[in-house]
Amino acid sequence: MKWRAAGLLGALCALTCGAQSFAASKTPSVADIVAAASNDEWRTLDPARTLYLQLPGGRVIIELVPAFAPQHVTNILKLISDHYFDGLTVIRAQDNFVVQWGDPDDKKPLGAARTKLPPEYVASYTATSSFKRLPDRDGYAPLAGFVDSLPTGRDLGNRTQWLAHCYGAVGVARGNDPESGNGSSLYVVIGQAPRQLDRNIAVVGHVWQGMDLLATLPRGGGAMGFYEKAEQYVPIVSLRRALDVPKAERTSLQVLRSDSRTFERLILARRNRHDEWMTNRPGFVDLCNIPVPVRPLPAAAVVH
Amino acid sequence: MKWRAAGLLGALCALTCGAQSFAASKTPSVADIVAAASNDEWRTLDPARTLYLQLPGGRVIIELVPAFAPQHVTNILKLISDHYFDGLTVIRAQDNFVVQWGDPDDKKPLGAARTKLPPEYVASYTATSSFKRLPDRDGYAPLAGFVDSLPTGRDLGNRTQWLAHCYGAVGVARGNDPESGNGSSLYVVIGQAPRQLDRNIAVVGHVWQGMDLLATLPRGGGAMGFYEKAEQYVPIVSLRRALDVPKAERTSLQVLRSDSRTFERLILARRNRHDEWMTNRPGFVDLCNIPVPVRPLPAAAVVH
Repeated sequence: MKWRAAGLLGALCALTCGAQSFAASKTPSVADIVAAASNDEWRTLDPARTLYLQLPGGRVIIELVPAFAPQHVTNILKLISDHYFDGLTVIRAQDNFVVQWGDPDDKKPLGAARTKLPPEYVASYTATSSFKRLPDRDGYAPLAGFVDSLPTGRDLGNRTQWLAHCYGAVGVARGNDPESGNGSSLYVVIGQAPRQLDRNIAVVGHVWQGMDLLATLPRGGGAMGFYEKAEQYVPIVSLRRALDVPKAERTSLQVLRSDSRTFERLILARRNRHDEWMTNRPGFVDLCNIPVPVRPLPAAAVVH
Repeated sequence: MKWRAAGLLGALCALTCGAQSFAASKTPSVADIVAAASNDEWRTLDPARTLYLQLPGGRVIIELVPAFAPQHVTNILKLISDHYFDGLTVIRAQDNFVVQWGDPDDKKPLGAARTKLPPEYVASYTATSSFKRLPDRDGYAPLAGFVDSLPTGRDLGNRTQWLAHCYGAVGVARGNDPESGNGSSLYVVIGQAPRQLDRNIAVVGHVWQGMDLLATLPRGGGAMGFYEKAEQYVPIVSLRRALDVPKAERTSLQVLRSDSRTFERLILARRNRHDEWMTNRPGFVDLCNIPVPVRPLPAAAVVH
């Protein structure tokens, strides 16, 4: 088995994971770079806007990002405080596209939440807001980079920015009416980044842990991956803010800050790929091809 | 349920699937465009280089493309004729990256197949070979487009081309030695296109049907998504050429020809998105964001 591991792990490695390091490498690997990050280069997810989506298979951890779609996030938090999603279901899993959940019957009252919202597809930014710009051109946005460790498009012309539809992006489903999204049905990107959706729909957050739980759900057999039979629905056990879960049951995560020196090194390492496996360095990196490092909050940092 | 369907199907539609058409649309949808294709705009997969990967969950249909990596394809066909893969397993499923199969013990003799192969990462092309070039810039390749309906990068400078690592690409795993790939372990892209692999590894084909069977496999818990326990392995029931399967058991597929007028219309429709749902047309389309239409061979075209 050892030899197998050595052989097959070598296979496809540099390419891929980037999270592996080879003794033979002359330059630091992505894993080396991330391991050398100082504690202040990580930020801890805020429990007031971190969500736990509890599926039968486990916990999916979502960060809501109010700066990009404030009214949508407020509405979603209202729905969550009413336990709106508990007992609803995943209604759709379209291969190489999205998983979506909500009320399969579209009947459950929204309580204090609004039924329509303005189309918060882009947000204004100020001159001082941090933007880690990528060195390369992006096809879908005038500028591409990271804000608060989230892949983001920017338009200098009208000073707007928006969360990009990369793997793990969480958005608010809507109908043809641009104001028809209200947060009662959410989707997560599980395939090739559908960047054509950018600036067309409200993106409200990002999945930082548990993507495998969503991405492995059986695909729906109906048009657009909707499940056709009620017995195919995957139940949502609950959707809660971390803040509303007892501390002992929380999963505290940190993500690498995109305004850190380590993040800069990470981008360059992914762009240039100075590892032994590569025979042709790409000299380019796409916005959605930079997985952002996540780690558990170090034990020493937990305040009791 | 009808209202639900109308509401939620509208949600996320134009964006997404493109395979839906709305009565209200003024311009033809992708579905309309494809439906209007004439029969000679489709090509039928050649059973001599179409593979059926039989998993417990069903059949995955792969087209091998010898023009891009002839010695690799020859070697894989030798392994298949020896039934090399039958009874082996999926050994790895890394979320948002690849599924890989082969011999978990790396011990099974390769028979008449070669153990090392030259690095066929790119192929030469001739002036007459058909290339449907995309209108936009690509980050990873000097030119991007389609050859025989497969996403392809091109370099005019040295007259080479290579199959791009888009969703569904099938490649040959290798170790650090560029000649260590031999086709006995193959991988399929199941996540965001890892285009950094282009020109670094031999891509030999494409999955035209059954991607959902691969993409929903449980992810491995080990480094790089390797399964850690033998009981996690997903068995490969068999890997056969379509030609070696009785005609009555074949699945005959056609793919839309990339040198057709309809394919040109399809690219423009995906690039411009003139549908009612979109409020911001992307005016760009990425090489890996153009799913190629596939259909069963029409009954009238089957020769008995």
